[in-house]
Amino acid sequence: MKAYQELSKEELLALKAELDAAYQDAKGKGLKLDMSRGKPAASQLDMTMDFMDVLDSQSNMKTEDGVDVRNYGGLDGIPEAKKLMGDIMGVSPENVIVCGNASLNIMYDTISRSMTHGVLGSTPWCKLDQVKFLCPVPGYDRHFAITQHFGIEMITVPMTFEGPDMDMVERLVAEDASIKGIWCVPKYSNPQGYSYSDETVRRMAALKPAAEDFRIFWDNAYAIHHLYDEIQDEILEILGECEKAGNPDMVYEFCSTSKVTFAGSGISAIASSKANLDAMRKSMTIQTIGYDKINQLRHVRYFKDIEGIKAHMKKHADLMRPKFQAVLKVLNEELSGLGIGEWTDPNGGYFISFDAMEGCAKAIVAKCKEAGVTLTGAGATYPYGVDPKDSNIRIAPSFPTPEEMAMATDLFVLCVKLVSVEKLLESRK
Amino acid sequence: MKAYQELSKEELLALKAELDAAYQDAKGKGLKLDMSRGKPAASQLDMTMDFMDVLDSQSNMKTEDGVDVRNYGGLDGIPEAKKLMGDIMGVSPENVIVCGNASLNIMYDTISRSMTHGVLGSTPWCKLDQVKFLCPVPGYDRHFAITQHFGIEMITVPMTFEGPDMDMVERLVAEDASIKGIWCVPKYSNPQGYSYSDETVRRMAALKPAAEDFRIFWDNAYAIHHLYDEIQDEILEILGECEKAGNPDMVYEFCSTSKVTFAGSGISAIASSKANLDAMRKSMTIQTIGYDKINQLRHVRYFKDIEGIKAHMKKHADLMRPKFQAVLKVLNEELSGLGIGEWTDPNGGYFISFDAMEGCAKAIVAKCKEAGVTLTGAGATYPYGVDPKDSNIRIAPSFPTPEEMAMATDLFVLCVKLVSVEKLLESRK
Repeated sequence: MKAYQELSKEELLALKAELDAAYQDAKGKGLKLDMSRGKPAASQLDMTMDFMDVLDSQSNMKTEDGVDVRNYGGLDGIPEAKKLMGDIMGVSPENVIVCGNASLNIMYDTISRSMTHGVLGSTPWCKLDQVKFLCPVPGYDRHFAITQHFGIEMITVPMTFEGPDMDMVERLVAEDASIKGIWCVPKYSNPQGYSYSDETVRRMAALKPAAEDFRIFWDNAYAIHHLYDEIQDEILEILGECEKAGNPDMVYEFCSTSKVTFAGSGISAIASSKANLDAMRKSMTIQTIGYDKINQLRHVRYFKDIEGIKAHMKKHADLMRPKFQAVLKVLNEELSGLGIGEWTDPNGGYFISFDAMEGCAKAIVAKCKEAGVTLTGAGATYPYGVDPKDSNIRIAPSFPTPEEMAMATDLFVLCVKLVSVEKLLESRK
Repeated sequence: MKAYQELSKEELLALKAELDAAYQDAKGKGLKLDMSRGKPAASQLDMTMDFMDVLDSQSNMKTEDGVDVRNYGGLDGIPEAKKLMGDIMGVSPENVIVCGNASLNIMYDTISRSMTHGVLGSTPWCKLDQVKFLCPVPGYDRHFAITQHFGIEMITVPMTFEGPDMDMVERLVAEDASIKGIWCVPKYSNPQGYSYSDETVRRMAALKPAAEDFRIFWDNAYAIHHLYDEIQDEILEILGECEKAGNPDMVYEFCSTSKVTFAGSGISAIASSKANLDAMRKSMTIQTIGYDKINQLRHVRYFKDIEGIKAHMKKHADLMRPKFQAVLKVLNEELSGLGIGEWTDPNGGYFISFDAMEGCAKAIVAKCKEAGVTLTGAGATYPYGVDPKDSNIRIAPSFPTPEEMAMATDLFVLCVKLVSVEKLLESRK
């Protein structure tokens, strides 16, 4: 197949007529598919229903250290849950606090606390004229939403397949003391599925920020969310690297079981240095009577240990893999060599990142929507919802079935082609 | 029995010798009892264990409007939980958002949000030179801890058996625009067990605060926590009263099932006007992916409706009543007429409030502690932990058994007598 850029105006017009007809045809099919969010499918949830049986009225409701999980107390989380969540992140239980049902909530609270109370004695961020965050792009919209909500200025840093552009990160944090943080999804990044190289992790841990209250927000959301048995990304453990580099307090790491047990009814955790966790405990003891220990115990009793979780995640992978493959097959067959799109082929996580020709993403998403396929809004992967090139589209294959994903991707590639042809014709006017 | 104040120095000295001996004796008994916190007893928790069976792998996991509680979504809480929590507070479900496992967390987040984002468009409190809260005293230590944590100045207002001194509240909020809120436990107040009179509620709802962002923090923690069948306090519904008075946005109401099902694994809720809830939703959508809907469903399936909860709370009352009665019996028998203490006799809630002679509370608590009985720290019921009269002690009868409560109270009255005698002797020097 010839690249679209090489087609003559006449060829493009003929192609447009053909694609227009196909699109009208597709619209008639009455599709109603959602690939907008990284939402588990019903099949994944059904697979985990025995989780509901693990605690019942006959269960021993005490932790291994004899605490009654049905009562108040235990700010840090129960010891066995600290161990389990620590093992997911590869850190020691004493570096872990287990929280409620969403790691997003811990991230929000961490930033909110920095705004009102500062970081280990620093000036509260709300008292500063300027607070900035580095945002590797494309990235996760909910991260950007938190920083935007608190009026934090976001500076974009390009992502590479090894992680953020570290030359730029190093330079920016060293020269600007108003830069207080960076958002990272280090493993199977949202939306590309990239994992940070060892060099990236080491350089991240060795940053020399001008701001002493600079923190890396290390959202290890997909730590155990592999798609394949044989190829699995692994990243260096960041807490240890920070300590080695003389920056023991520079990182907050987050993870959860939202995409392991039930979305919205999982448990979440933060890992950090003792100093950072102590500061957090000082707020937590005011903020909460402790998180849901029964649900923590339910998780530990269900999985037993990290091996139990890994085995469970293989079953998830078996359900997720065909969906990713369905998307990739259509993309490969339909778009390879056309010069109108590039996409990632991740080994894990929840997303595929697609880059259309410049100026086409919004139109593609709109066209898909018109024909019944909902994608994440174009621009969502950028701070303030603005992709300067209007090029990136996040594809979330988890929720529909593989068959539905194939149908949705058929429509998607049709829209990509159509919008690209229109764009090329426009430029030839 | 003669009042201690009327005893001669010689009589006091003789009494002191007798009490000293009794105290030495009591110390030898090796008591280890905790009446410091409003913590449910194991017997209450055991009674609710069938709660663990209500959802299992065979359960229908959909809400009445067809939402899968195992997946993301549903910021407000599931409709049937909004109804249930609304019924506890006597408000309509559309005025309710169901949250996580602790109403304390909603209160903290509400104040935190006011600090960083203001209230319905007002200046964020963190940008103001002064923010003050009215604190009816004695009151709930965790409320005061939140306001203190955010650097909010606390102004005490005396409690009466009808609620806070409303003359003072009306005057203060009208003249000082830096007063942004008042903490209230309107029913079975912590620690007295007083319930606000209809007049108090109406005057509260009709306040004319100088600050447009003034809010009443209405912590209806003991809405359904009666001790008796035949005598139950009821208070006017505050949202409706505020609306009638032309102050529809002036109140946030809070409640939870922490002392209904399991402490730490219950569900909590806020009730307020549409405008206030919409502002909260704007933050919540950034802060969380929604709270634990499975636990919400578990609650609704277990209780069915408000009548189910009320029936359940009668069983709680059967366990709690003997503990309160054990305390009150000893207090009445041992301290009546001595002029060295006054105490409340509540119809519900979790506490009895005891007022010792001025300057005696700390010494009494210390003496109890020395002999193995832990009470809430003296001063804890006042902002900054400082009771200016050093008089108030909170007694929490819920955790020990009735027999243990009787033993603990025996020691308590002994310590009250001993410290009072010492105080009187000191003043006669």
